[in-house]
Amino acid sequence: MSSQRFEILATDGAARAGCLHMARGTVRTPAFMPVGTAGSVKAMLPESVAETGADIVLGNTYHLMLRPGAERIARLGGLHKFMNWPRPILTDSGGFQVMSLASLRKLTEEGVRFRSHIDGAEYFLSPERAMEIQRLLGSDIQMALDECAPFPSTEAVIEKSLALSMRWAKRSKAAFGEQEHQSCFGIVQGGVYPHLRRRSAEELTGIGFDGYAVGGLAVGEGQAAMFEVLEATLPHLPSDRPRYLMGVGKPDDIVGAALRGVDMFDCVLPTRSGRNGQAFTWKGPLNLRNARHAEDAAPLDADCSCPACKSYSRAYLHHVVKSGEIIASMLLTWHNLTFFQDLMRAFREAVTQKMAASFAQSFLAGYRAGEPEEGG
Amino acid sequence: MSSQRFEILATDGAARAGCLHMARGTVRTPAFMPVGTAGSVKAMLPESVAETGADIVLGNTYHLMLRPGAERIARLGGLHKFMNWPRPILTDSGGFQVMSLASLRKLTEEGVRFRSHIDGAEYFLSPERAMEIQRLLGSDIQMALDECAPFPSTEAVIEKSLALSMRWAKRSKAAFGEQEHQSCFGIVQGGVYPHLRRRSAEELTGIGFDGYAVGGLAVGEGQAAMFEVLEATLPHLPSDRPRYLMGVGKPDDIVGAALRGVDMFDCVLPTRSGRNGQAFTWKGPLNLRNARHAEDAAPLDADCSCPACKSYSRAYLHHVVKSGEIIASMLLTWHNLTFFQDLMRAFREAVTQKMAASFAQSFLAGYRAGEPEEGG
Repeated sequence: MSSQRFEILATDGAARAGCLHMARGTVRTPAFMPVGTAGSVKAMLPESVAETGADIVLGNTYHLMLRPGAERIARLGGLHKFMNWPRPILTDSGGFQVMSLASLRKLTEEGVRFRSHIDGAEYFLSPERAMEIQRLLGSDIQMALDECAPFPSTEAVIEKSLALSMRWAKRSKAAFGEQEHQSCFGIVQGGVYPHLRRRSAEELTGIGFDGYAVGGLAVGEGQAAMFEVLEATLPHLPSDRPRYLMGVGKPDDIVGAALRGVDMFDCVLPTRSGRNGQAFTWKGPLNLRNARHAEDAAPLDADCSCPACKSYSRAYLHHVVKSGEIIASMLLTWHNLTFFQDLMRAFREAVTQKMAASFAQSFLAGYRAGEPEEGG
Repeated sequence: MSSQRFEILATDGAARAGCLHMARGTVRTPAFMPVGTAGSVKAMLPESVAETGADIVLGNTYHLMLRPGAERIARLGGLHKFMNWPRPILTDSGGFQVMSLASLRKLTEEGVRFRSHIDGAEYFLSPERAMEIQRLLGSDIQMALDECAPFPSTEAVIEKSLALSMRWAKRSKAAFGEQEHQSCFGIVQGGVYPHLRRRSAEELTGIGFDGYAVGGLAVGEGQAAMFEVLEATLPHLPSDRPRYLMGVGKPDDIVGAALRGVDMFDCVLPTRSGRNGQAFTWKGPLNLRNARHAEDAAPLDADCSCPACKSYSRAYLHHVVKSGEIIASMLLTWHNLTFFQDLMRAFREAVTQKMAASFAQSFLAGYRAGEPEEGG
């Protein structure tokens, strides 16, 4: 058994606030995990990522297996040492990005053969290889390999895909084996079909994982459908294990999902948006490229403690975004990650104070009513 | 008179070690000034620039006048506040970059009319406007506007250009006027012609500046010719004023020039090279893109105190350079700026110990004999 211990400190309705204790550190939940795709949370030094309040980051098996390669990272002492991040790391299984990035995919019962988007080299990913790669990386939370069916798909397609994912989940768990300090999470699939989601949750629970992810969401189904799927799924997962909603999301998605009992999130949104000149604030997202900021001496957010807000004007941020200066990506990524972590902290406090629903309501009102220059 | 005070603490042959005391801080000389072209030393936060040991940075009048504009920066409280760098700033006059970057230039006695390389808008730069812009920016050291003749040019062309530059120097000084805490530097021109350099130095000394720059070098004339020009020029400048070699340079150029009595340097080399995967070390430059670093667990330079060397392997740096990760630019720029500042510090100590020549010799031997994978 993994040494992981999930401590639920408070609940409020379906929402929970807790701590996921792991050998490399404790993750406060609900947690937002910044994405460090290829061994770097883009435009950030890892000590700065920690300063934003992040307890755990996500690494992408697909990117790392292609470059620099899992065996190479293992020879260099593992991913934590390689990327200078000594705290917990969760890695995905690579399956989702094989489907979205690789070319010439050929899916069989055994696994998926594909060509690298970097150099066209051929690779094979099976449940066994996905788990081997994550073990070589030294990942603290290793994800089972699943198949991500496209959205929209018919029920028959989803059912067939789900069955494969469940067989792969069993093989993933067997391949994970026994690791003293690492955990293995299974992934619920089933599209937007409640009975398939329930079946998936129950089958995974039968296999027995250290945590349970919900996959195949935030792929175009819309927020209402996503929340419905969560409501149909989470009650069928063991309440004493962490629940992770993969690839989500926008601040309002996160708040709504956490309210429904999700404990962990990851998304490229704060980092990618930061590189595109977009900043998240409690009054909604801002586009620093907009000319109205050109001579604004005010900070991005007077209440934020990040370097972008403490030491620079909106006018400066506008200037460096427009000029394509790297510092624009550095400062706005730092700000966005700080905002996401501040949001998680505020949500955890609201759960502790049994005020999760009213927090969510007032957050959404402010976030949606704020500066209306562009959508979320 | 400017409140600037130049204190020479030690000399060794023609070399000097000193302190340039200014209202916003003291600059240890010989000094290397990182280039912050458009209000940012690329890929660095200003506090990190200070951590490398830099006492002063350079801003480019040409870039800042086009975007975001000098009047706008003045309304926002000046360049120091805008870019969050409270220490001294030197700005160039814009002349050099008008010649190298702008289009449709038209040079007259009055000044130069040109079009922005960003949006084609028309601008006019005269000695008076160049000084006005630098005053609006709040620059601590403001450079006279000069004309930079192309290399190679005939003696007649250089002589004519020099005469214009000297008339512009007089107008620049007059336009600079009296500023309590700011300084104004003149720029020696004269190509590779010793008698013209001497004439230029003497004319500028006659006008009377707070410091003297040597311009029009490192434009293709080669190191030997550059050193000859310095030897023909520096003796004709007042020894109690700082001497600044503009746009130089490579580590071996800097050491040779400092040995001949130069006090200040600036160059994009450490920052630009950092963004291109090149790292400077005491054993010569390294290209981190080279496959031989792919599995090298050693740090870039075991004796360097920068974050790139303290916390990462060459293998990681190779990986992030190859992957185009922003952290590659951040770490290698930080390292290179640290190397340049360490080099200046070592040179200053050598002067203090009357060992400048032997320091230079042993530095060059190590730097040129090191890891011979590519030229400097």
